[in-house]
Amino acid sequence: MNIPRSDAAQSIHPDRTQAAEPAAEAVLARLAAVIESRKGTDPSSSYVARLLARAPDSVLKKIGEEATETVMAAKDGERERIVAETADLWFHCLVMLAHYGLGPDDVLAELARREGLSGLEEKALRKAIAREGEQA
Amino acid sequence: MNIPRSDAAQSIHPDRTQAAEPAAEAVLARLAAVIESRKGTDPSSSYVARLLARAPDSVLKKIGEEATETVMAAKDGERERIVAETADLWFHCLVMLAHYGLGPDDVLAELARREGLSGLEEKALRKAIAREGEQA
Amino acid sequence: MNIPRSDAAQSIHPDRTQAAEPAAEAVLARLAAVIESRKGTDPSSSYVARLLARAPDSVLKKIGEEATETVMAAKDGERERIVAETADLWFHCLVMLAHYGLGPDDVLAELARREGLSGLEEKALRKAIAREGEQA
Amino acid sequence: MNIPRSDAAQSIHPDRTQAAEPAAEAVLARLAAVIESRKGTDPSSSYVARLLARAPDSVLKKIGEEATETVMAAKDGERERIVAETADLWFHCLVMLAHYGLGPDDVLAELARREGLSGLEEKALRKAIAREGEQA
Repeated sequence: MNIPRSDAAQSIHPDRTQAAEPAAEAVLARLAAVIESRKGTDPSSSYVARLLARAPDSVLKKIGEEATETVMAAKDGERERIVAETADLWFHCLVMLAHYGLGPDDVLAELARREGLSGLEEKALRKAIAREGEQA
Repeated sequence: MNIPRSDAAQSIHPDRTQAAEPAAEAVLARLAAVIESRKGTDPSSSYVARLLARAPDSVLKKIGEEATETVMAAKDGERERIVAETADLWFHCLVMLAHYGLGPDDVLAELARREGLSGLEEKALRKAIAREGEQA
Repeated sequence: MNIPRSDAAQSIHPDRTQAAEPAAEAVLARLAAVIESRKGTDPSSSYVARLLARAPDSVLKKIGEEATETVMAAKDGERERIVAETADLWFHCLVMLAHYGLGPDDVLAELARREGLSGLEEKALRKAIAREGEQA
Repeated sequence: MNIPRSDAAQSIHPDRTQAAEPAAEAVLARLAAVIESRKGTDPSSSYVARLLARAPDSVLKKIGEEATETVMAAKDGERERIVAETADLWFHCLVMLAHYGLGPDDVLAELARREGLSGLEEKALRKAIAREGEQA
C-alpha cells in the first residue's frame, strides 16, 4: 500500500503545517509519568511493569526490534506504519530512560542544547565529508 | 564510568521531577522546522541537506546505527551517553519523518491516541503473556 | 555470569585452535538444504515454514532482533550467549537468503573473493582513516 | 536496480544448486585466522587491527549497521547487495567473536548441535504459535 504522499499527509495529520500544539507535545511527559508510576508494580498488571521488571534487556531488545521495524516501514513507504513504528520506538525509549532514572526532558534538553543545529550539524557535516572523501 | 544513578540524575537534569516545560518540549517542532527548511538546499551546505539528498537510505542506516549505540550506552549504564545517543536516534527519526512528509506531531498524536496506555498496554500485555507461556 | 575467557574458550570449543573440520563447516550447507525443503510446506508444520510464509518481513525483523541480542550478549561478555545469539543471527540470515533464492555459498564466495582481505581492508581502512580525521 | 531473480541467481553463483564446496566453506576459518593474526598489531596497519584496538564497541556498532543495511538491501530485493551486506555482517561477527576469544567453529558447532532443527524448530515454533494466539 503506497499512499501518495500529498494525500496521505492530509489524512494522517491534516494540520501539520501549523505550529505544534503544546498539548500534543506534552504527551511525552504524560507517558513518562505513567511509566514512572508503574515502577515496582506487579509485572503481571501491565506491559510497562513487565518490561521494567526485566529491564534493561527486555526494553533494549525492543528498541532494536522497533528500530528495525521503523526501517522496514520506511522502505515500504507506508506512512501510517512509519508513524506507528516510530511511536513504538519512542515509547520504548521512554521506558528505557525511566529504567535509568532519566526522562524525555533529558533528551529534549540535549536536543535543545544542540539547537540551531550548529554543533550537531558541524560535527555531522565533518563526518559526512570525511566519509565522502573515502568513497571517491 | 558508571555514575551512581541518584547523583547523575541530578547532574544531568536537576529539576526533572518538575513538570515538563512546554518550551523544552517544543524543541521537536523547532527541529522539524529546521529540517524542513533544508529540503532542496545544497547537500554540501549542511548535514541535514546531505542526509535528505540521499534519503531514505542515508537516514535509515543512521537509525539502525543510533539504535545500536543507544543499546550499547544503556548496557554500559552511562547516563550521559544514553541521553546523547537517544537524542541522536530521535533526531534522525525527525529527518526520516521529514523525508516522508511527516513530522513529530504525527508521532506525538499517535502516542496521545494510545494514551492512558490502554490500547498499547492491552495489546502488548497479551503479547508478553503469550511469550511467557512459550518460555515456560 | 562472566566466565573467565581462557576457561570458557575451552568449555565451549575445546579444540578450536586446531584447523576447522570441514564436517563442522558444512553445517551451513546442510541447514540451507533443510530451509530450502521447507519452502511451500504448511506454515504450521515448522518454524522455518512459518517464517518463509511471511517472508521477507518476518525474517528481516528477526535479523534486527538477533543482531541487537548479539550486541547485548557481547556487552555482557557472556561467551555462551554470544555464541548462541550469533548462531541465531546467522540462522535467520540463511532463511532470509533462501527467500531471495540465495544461499550460504553466495555469501562465502563473496567473502572468499575479498580474501586476503586486500579489497575489504583497503576500502574499510580508507573509511576508518577518513572517520578518524573527522573526530580529531 | 532490481535484477530478475532467476537471472541474478546464475550470475551470482552459477552452480549453487550443487553441493557446497568444502574449499569455499573453509573461508570462515581462513578469515578467522587472518583476524587472529591482526591482534596486537599496529591499528594503523589494517582495518581489522583498528577495529580490534577499539573493540568491542567499534565492532558491535558495525554489527548494528550491517544488520540494518542487510535489511534495507533485502527490502529493495537487490540480490547482489543482499549478498554483499550479509558478507559484511558475517565478517564483522567474526571480528567480534575474535575479540571474545571465540571463532566461527563455535558458532558452527552451535548450529550443528541444533541441527535437524529439532530443538531450534521446536522452541521457535512454540514461540511463534504463542505469538499468533496473541494476535488473534
